[in-house]
Amino acid sequence: MLIFALDSSATAASSALVEDGKILSENYLNIGLKHSETLGILVDNTLKTAGKKVEDIDLFAVTHGPGSFTGIRIGVSLIKGLAAANDTPCFGVSALEAIAYPLKDFDTLAVSVMDARCKQVYNAIFENGNRLCDDRAISTDELAEELKQYNKKITLIGDGAEIVYNEIGSENIVLANPQIRFQRASSAALLAEYYIKNTAMTPKAAMYINPVYLRKPQAERMRGE
Amino acid sequence: MLIFALDSSATAASSALVEDGKILSENYLNIGLKHSETLGILVDNTLKTAGKKVEDIDLFAVTHGPGSFTGIRIGVSLIKGLAAANDTPCFGVSALEAIAYPLKDFDTLAVSVMDARCKQVYNAIFENGNRLCDDRAISTDELAEELKQYNKKITLIGDGAEIVYNEIGSENIVLANPQIRFQRASSAALLAEYYIKNTAMTPKAAMYINPVYLRKPQAERMRGE
Repeated sequence: MLIFALDSSATAASSALVEDGKILSENYLNIGLKHSETLGILVDNTLKTAGKKVEDIDLFAVTHGPGSFTGIRIGVSLIKGLAAANDTPCFGVSALEAIAYPLKDFDTLAVSVMDARCKQVYNAIFENGNRLCDDRAISTDELAEELKQYNKKITLIGDGAEIVYNEIGSENIVLANPQIRFQRASSAALLAEYYIKNTAMTPKAAMYINPVYLRKPQAERMRGE
Repeated sequence: MLIFALDSSATAASSALVEDGKILSENYLNIGLKHSETLGILVDNTLKTAGKKVEDIDLFAVTHGPGSFTGIRIGVSLIKGLAAANDTPCFGVSALEAIAYPLKDFDTLAVSVMDARCKQVYNAIFENGNRLCDDRAISTDELAEELKQYNKKITLIGDGAEIVYNEIGSENIVLANPQIRFQRASSAALLAEYYIKNTAMTPKAAMYINPVYLRKPQAERMRGE
């Protein structure tokens, strides 16, 4: 199964081609938020260097949230467009779960943290690939308090990891090195492959993949007020 | 310090731009050994998507071996060419150490294994980023025997990891997931940055970066016989 995946849920953006658990091609870019301009180029480079075309793809995967509202909309929209051409099925993956993916085989709590501004973070906690809580929006203070209760090694990952680390840095807490700290599209592809092969979860038609926000976008919040 | 790094020491190839510990751009390709055709395209994509030029680079890094003889020659030669244009300094990094880099913060022995054919592997062992032995060429049987003596968790990484895993798979041995199993150019860049900032090691002039083989290339071995 040839899977093409995109991530643009935070500051970095990436695209990847994965076939039967093997990463064929991956492009990662972290130069500031210009996803509307750069993501298409990443897609093109990922496909061309691997010698593949849109019509070769069996499944499209995308990190559907939480994260940057605009970033998620760009990623989900681009995936819809790519998939629509050939009615290729799509699969949405939690950005927080994608962030934690590389840590699944290590003896540590994997604490995914994305900066949600306003002293809040998006967060989920994993242990050996198992989810310990739902994706949530939580204040950094609350999360820091909660983490103090764990008596085991904690690895902080994601673009909000440094914020939490600076707040509670203690002996059993590690800030992941830059290579595995941020989400990569290959994690979304590998997770999509895992869920489809091993669970009852099924892909959706292109136009039914939607962003999964944990808070209302600011414009909607302001309109509500 | 803006570092551009290349890796083509095994089947996968990658190029990366790293600035002060942050990965700006990385391109990874694993579609079979065609480095002479694909590596230049990766270089071009990595620089262009990040909006950088060869003249912007402060340091070039490359995995100088061990690994595929031809792959290493291609990577080292391309780095020499890129660096020569502006007399930019260069730094060579062990491919085995680059493979182990993402595991440096986890409680596990990181056992780097590259397939060296003829029932041999290139290997080095690391623990929390510290090297426990020199890079070496060793038979898979010998390495398997040695690993049995460790009473702690072992993570096998590199393109030879699966060979050793199939030979000795036991409860305390884990085959790294595909995302962190293979070397990436960003590891070479991050290691080069670390060594230059924290040790007495210094970069070299472009033309003095050379491949570091652990065995003689087959053509030389045959001539010798």
